[in-house]
Amino acid sequence: MRQQLQSVLHEEIPLTRAIGITVRELADDSILLHAPIDSNLNHKCTAFGGSLYSVAVLAGWGLIWSRLHREGLNGHIVIQESHSRFLSPVTGDILAHCAFDDATALERFLGIYARRGRARITLQTRIGNGEAPNMTFEGTYVVHR
Amino acid sequence: MRQQLQSVLHEEIPLTRAIGITVRELADDSILLHAPIDSNLNHKCTAFGGSLYSVAVLAGWGLIWSRLHREGLNGHIVIQESHSRFLSPVTGDILAHCAFDDATALERFLGIYARRGRARITLQTRIGNGEAPNMTFEGTYVVHR
Repeated sequence: MRQQLQSVLHEEIPLTRAIGITVRELADDSILLHAPIDSNLNHKCTAFGGSLYSVAVLAGWGLIWSRLHREGLNGHIVIQESHSRFLSPVTGDILAHCAFDDATALERFLGIYARRGRARITLQTRIGNGEAPNMTFEGTYVVHR
Repeated sequence: MRQQLQSVLHEEIPLTRAIGITVRELADDSILLHAPIDSNLNHKCTAFGGSLYSVAVLAGWGLIWSRLHREGLNGHIVIQESHSRFLSPVTGDILAHCAFDDATALERFLGIYARRGRARITLQTRIGNGEAPNMTFEGTYVVHR
């Protein structure tokens, strides 16, 4: 599933190849994406905000994609709204972690999607160390048939 | 100034070349960035959210950069926080428009920066048609010496 998701990202969103995104870890309820700093530098020799955003938004996207596949569901996943906070510069490789933290919300989301063919879920992604992340991202995704 | 900003973007943030960002228009108080849809497609054959975000965040960045240069000021410009709404898919080339809409806020920002060497400003960028934009972006940027 991890390799399959990575292929989907690289084939369907070509910019992910330029960013160098790979799926480092994929579990039932969490995902870790990686991108090298070299291809994502900015004018301050830290990671470009647009790169951080891209990796963060795709962490949530990939986690939803893999969960739908595990459940035998298909659907289009689109980002609807997001709020990003850049707390400190990223000076090394980019690691974005996203998890289904709220099991009840996840079950509700899957149930609504199975019944109505359209549902939304809000996920948190953080880049960098868990205790003191460099960036936090909250994204609301809509899935529809 | 327009060409100079474009060179700065391409040289200092290499990913802007992969995205294909060009500075289409640059005036005292507004900027229009362009990127072709071809290099920014997603799984739905519309523009990838990470590409839209990158063009939007750089519209504000480029507008601040050019204004500082006009004023004879230098500084590091970093994004601190942003809120993005994806209202409808972008099916053609990406056009991001940003303007200094609030002259008083701009003067205050420039004054504080000149005095203290650190100031922040919040800008709105929209992608797509002005009446019915495809995406709206509100970003708070910090400039420091």
